[in-house]
Amino acid sequence: MDESLTIAKEALKAAEQASFVANNTWMLVATVLVFIMHLGFATLESGFVQRKNVVNILFKNVMIVSLGILSYYFIGFGLMYPGAEGGFFAFGGFGLNNPESLSSSIDYAEGNYTYYTDFIFQGMFAATCCTIVSGAVAERIKLLPFLFFCLLFVSLSYPVTGYWKWGAGWLDAEGFYDFAGSTLVHSVGGWGALAGAILLGPRTGKYGSKGIKPIPGHSMPLASVGVFLLWFGWFGFNGGSVLSADPDLVSLVFVTTTLAAAAGGIGSFLISKLVYKSFDLGMVLNGILGGLVGITASADGVLLSAALLIGFVAGVLIPLSVNFFDKIKIDDPVGATSVHLVCGIWGTIAVAIFGNYGEGVGTLSIQLLGIGAVGLFTFSFAFFVFYIIKVTVGIRVNKEEEIQGLDIGEHQAVAYQ
Amino acid sequence: MDESLTIAKEALKAAEQASFVANNTWMLVATVLVFIMHLGFATLESGFVQRKNVVNILFKNVMIVSLGILSYYFIGFGLMYPGAEGGFFAFGGFGLNNPESLSSSIDYAEGNYTYYTDFIFQGMFAATCCTIVSGAVAERIKLLPFLFFCLLFVSLSYPVTGYWKWGAGWLDAEGFYDFAGSTLVHSVGGWGALAGAILLGPRTGKYGSKGIKPIPGHSMPLASVGVFLLWFGWFGFNGGSVLSADPDLVSLVFVTTTLAAAAGGIGSFLISKLVYKSFDLGMVLNGILGGLVGITASADGVLLSAALLIGFVAGVLIPLSVNFFDKIKIDDPVGATSVHLVCGIWGTIAVAIFGNYGEGVGTLSIQLLGIGAVGLFTFSFAFFVFYIIKVTVGIRVNKEEEIQGLDIGEHQAVAYQ
Amino acid sequence: MDESLTIAKEALKAAEQASFVANNTWMLVATVLVFIMHLGFATLESGFVQRKNVVNILFKNVMIVSLGILSYYFIGFGLMYPGAEGGFFAFGGFGLNNPESLSSSIDYAEGNYTYYTDFIFQGMFAATCCTIVSGAVAERIKLLPFLFFCLLFVSLSYPVTGYWKWGAGWLDAEGFYDFAGSTLVHSVGGWGALAGAILLGPRTGKYGSKGIKPIPGHSMPLASVGVFLLWFGWFGFNGGSVLSADPDLVSLVFVTTTLAAAAGGIGSFLISKLVYKSFDLGMVLNGILGGLVGITASADGVLLSAALLIGFVAGVLIPLSVNFFDKIKIDDPVGATSVHLVCGIWGTIAVAIFGNYGEGVGTLSIQLLGIGAVGLFTFSFAFFVFYIIKVTVGIRVNKEEEIQGLDIGEHQAVAYQ
Repeated sequence: MDESLTIAKEALKAAEQASFVANNTWMLVATVLVFIMHLGFATLESGFVQRKNVVNILFKNVMIVSLGILSYYFIGFGLMYPGAEGGFFAFGGFGLNNPESLSSSIDYAEGNYTYYTDFIFQGMFAATCCTIVSGAVAERIKLLPFLFFCLLFVSLSYPVTGYWKWGAGWLDAEGFYDFAGSTLVHSVGGWGALAGAILLGPRTGKYGSKGIKPIPGHSMPLASVGVFLLWFGWFGFNGGSVLSADPDLVSLVFVTTTLAAAAGGIGSFLISKLVYKSFDLGMVLNGILGGLVGITASADGVLLSAALLIGFVAGVLIPLSVNFFDKIKIDDPVGATSVHLVCGIWGTIAVAIFGNYGEGVGTLSIQLLGIGAVGLFTFSFAFFVFYIIKVTVGIRVNKEEEIQGLDIGEHQAVAYQ
Repeated sequence: MDESLTIAKEALKAAEQASFVANNTWMLVATVLVFIMHLGFATLESGFVQRKNVVNILFKNVMIVSLGILSYYFIGFGLMYPGAEGGFFAFGGFGLNNPESLSSSIDYAEGNYTYYTDFIFQGMFAATCCTIVSGAVAERIKLLPFLFFCLLFVSLSYPVTGYWKWGAGWLDAEGFYDFAGSTLVHSVGGWGALAGAILLGPRTGKYGSKGIKPIPGHSMPLASVGVFLLWFGWFGFNGGSVLSADPDLVSLVFVTTTLAAAAGGIGSFLISKLVYKSFDLGMVLNGILGGLVGITASADGVLLSAALLIGFVAGVLIPLSVNFFDKIKIDDPVGATSVHLVCGIWGTIAVAIFGNYGEGVGTLSIQLLGIGAVGLFTFSFAFFVFYIIKVTVGIRVNKEEEIQGLDIGEHQAVAYQ
Repeated sequence: MDESLTIAKEALKAAEQASFVANNTWMLVATVLVFIMHLGFATLESGFVQRKNVVNILFKNVMIVSLGILSYYFIGFGLMYPGAEGGFFAFGGFGLNNPESLSSSIDYAEGNYTYYTDFIFQGMFAATCCTIVSGAVAERIKLLPFLFFCLLFVSLSYPVTGYWKWGAGWLDAEGFYDFAGSTLVHSVGGWGALAGAILLGPRTGKYGSKGIKPIPGHSMPLASVGVFLLWFGWFGFNGGSVLSADPDLVSLVFVTTTLAAAAGGIGSFLISKLVYKSFDLGMVLNGILGGLVGITASADGVLLSAALLIGFVAGVLIPLSVNFFDKIKIDDPVGATSVHLVCGIWGTIAVAIFGNYGEGVGTLSIQLLGIGAVGLFTFSFAFFVFYIIKVTVGIRVNKEEEIQGLDIGEHQAVAYQ
């Protein structure tokens, strides 16, 4: 009898440990997948800009990852997940602080992952919001001011709104739902992109007296590599947001994410062909991304048919939105505002239409409240920072440098020899 | 005593659940790896075509993933895995239908993965067969007819022959063995490629009065990226085909797959140098792919020395086969027929020579029967569809568009600015 | 009572098996990540060389993986891990020999991974040391002699010094510590690179009468892709070196690795800007790699603040070291000696400064002994082999071929059409 009990307890502990290992491993794999999204953004944006600005956009993307991780390490993580004490601007302290109240790492997150895993997964997320901005302000923003903006955006803006929901703040208490960040990551990046694009103004020559002049990207292979890598990384972005390796939930998330991406591509394909009479590769690429952004808020809680519809609508929105922003002369070289802001909003609303999250969670009013509150805070923050930059050191390179290209102007280098 | 039993039962259940989580996680990681093979194909084919057709091949590859996933979702999956009721053309119904007979997802596949995991892993496989075709028909096929072909190929042709073996159909009952699809995926793609290449005819100028004119690809870096990514993805393609994370089997599969790929590269290297007097990068790249295709049928059941030999022979076959197809004037811009058809057949035969699968499984006669039956069905299907297209809307762009390039002709765009 | 005991034992076995599955799966995922580092090196080196030598560097990288895996399979693995019997040149026999003493694969490595997993993970590591050399000798070394060097380097040199520590040889007994190979992999590659660069001499025109002529790489996007992929793969390189999926250790390694990489980028950024007045993308890219190499020796046993500092110092060292090697006219087109040798040495010393590995492990004197012993052996080996090549068949292409480019000279091909 004693022997049975001893072995039974040992077995239970071993099983719990095995479960801990499996779950934590998935979270780390998801982290690696989210990391490679930074290469996805770097290649996508490089492909969509002109040859003369490629070194500059690569430089920015490489620096954003480095700065983003460090900002989040020193300030962002403590701000976003303050534990019990947080108010409107929650803050848990500087740097990482492994909770001392735990006797063992298996107790940190119900045996699903360690404290370090938590940080590194969240840290990879955080830096992406700046990468989104980087595309919209490309080909004309000054380098150092932009990096300064990123520092503040990842340290302060992203964590505050992130805390409202994922840090168990007030939006979470209200019943707002955003599974993996259609609002908290993508529209946040999109609002920053919009603020930057407005304050910078369009690239020289884009909106002339003869109408809109298309400025095509310099390398469609690079742009395509970017979209495939982003899709690839999204399996970690959405799949890891389950915050465990729960087989049912993670595999559901994989299916909804894939269906939405595919349907987004088809939606954009159809509108491009039917409305704009063109097999436009750039549109289909952005349509896939739109589908991915759209499903991100609800990938864990919709029917497969709903996932298809969410992605398809997002894909349809892309060419319309790209055209709309061109009409109102907001110049976004890579379409980041359309992909991340417009489809991020759509995805957050879609939670109210298609989501199954129980009573009072994700209703239309609370979803709109969340979109509005996060939007207002983020747009104001970004606009304010960019504005201060603009009226002090200046935000835009001079016209000569812009025409010559930022690679020569900022880096004394060229992308291709 | 009661306490012991309670805890023991709880522990057993927890251990089974932990095993479920670990196995399902591996299948999802394998899915992600197979997904990125689509980027591998996209970059490989882009690299191997001329600069003027790059947007077109990227567009096709992006659309194939999207269309492939959706076709397989709506029709293919139900057709390929009908459950008990299937006949020659098995069919389990439209769309996904989570089996209602299950009380819990852990019961679906002996605790190895969920129903959704099953679909998404198989769905990633399905779309690859069209990607193979895409390379062989590049630089001259019309866009929409090709996409229409893909729709039918992934919805109908691939699932029917897939069902014969993997859906427990008649070839499976006969003892045919094809571990991860040397025949069911690669030669299926290869037969489609052959049918398309025959009906299209060679690219203008390829086989002139002065002999064979080489038309080199426009970017060797892109092509090389493609091969590395395909090798990378193959760890999921073959490793995931174990259909669990069984440590012995999956690690064996990793070793046989790697050895065959490496030996394939060496085989191609030697023949290129000794016979054709050239350090030909394209040949070595295709030699690696040939080794991978070759080992795919038997990666879980051969000695390591056999894996080496299978890969080496596949590598040797590549330059010979590429030359053979050029001799008979079948023009395949990327060598897809040599890689996927010739090495797919070789790998399936190799099961009979080297495989250890027990009495009556994988004998030479049954392997040849499988190769022949799948080949006959697939080639007929593809030839018929392409032929109907040819005599109705037309299959080939006109000569002017071909010479100018399909990027301008079909997309009014260029790949590089 | 009997029932309890039976179930309890069954549960314990099931839990151990689940743990085995989860741990082995992580090691296989890590293997896949290390594999893709070969693409990282291929693209990094391609990007950093001139357009006329791109096919050649791709060819070398593709062949190195293939040759490396096979060399390690036939000789290296047995040499590096001889089991109990090894001396200074340990040797356990040719080819793989699954230990027959084991009754079950779960007993091989305390239930963490199988014998095949062990081989394939170590095999992926082995080939990287040659890839490091390949960059430093680029644009002027003859193809076949270089491949011959690689064969010997992976078969003999790398395994002997690897055995000293990881095979439980004399350096291990002395208390030398090198977690994932700052010395055993990176500085080994770096010493080979240095020997090759010295014996080859600089590229024609690099150090002229008018001072140092910069020879910029031909594609910054390719180089950037390489660094992101290497960072991506490093999660497997360092994370897999835990040799299990231990949640605490692997997640710690992820955090230290990431922080060091980010800090390395920042360190290089600052020195480039402050000392050399330039936003130099190449330097920041190499700074990130330097940070990664630096943390590799101690990623499992330092404070996070120490990881930051180790990475930052490595990043600072990069521009200084690159300039130093240029001053002494050792020409290294990709900066491999600075990244892998200098930062590898720094990382190994950092173990003595920051590492927490207990009494007598990783003291400064033993770390310096390890650096010196491995350096002496490897540099001598590489110098001897390259020297024999130089005085027999010749090591360097002739000047005409160098100026025309090795793509035409060795491959009768060009990288871009």
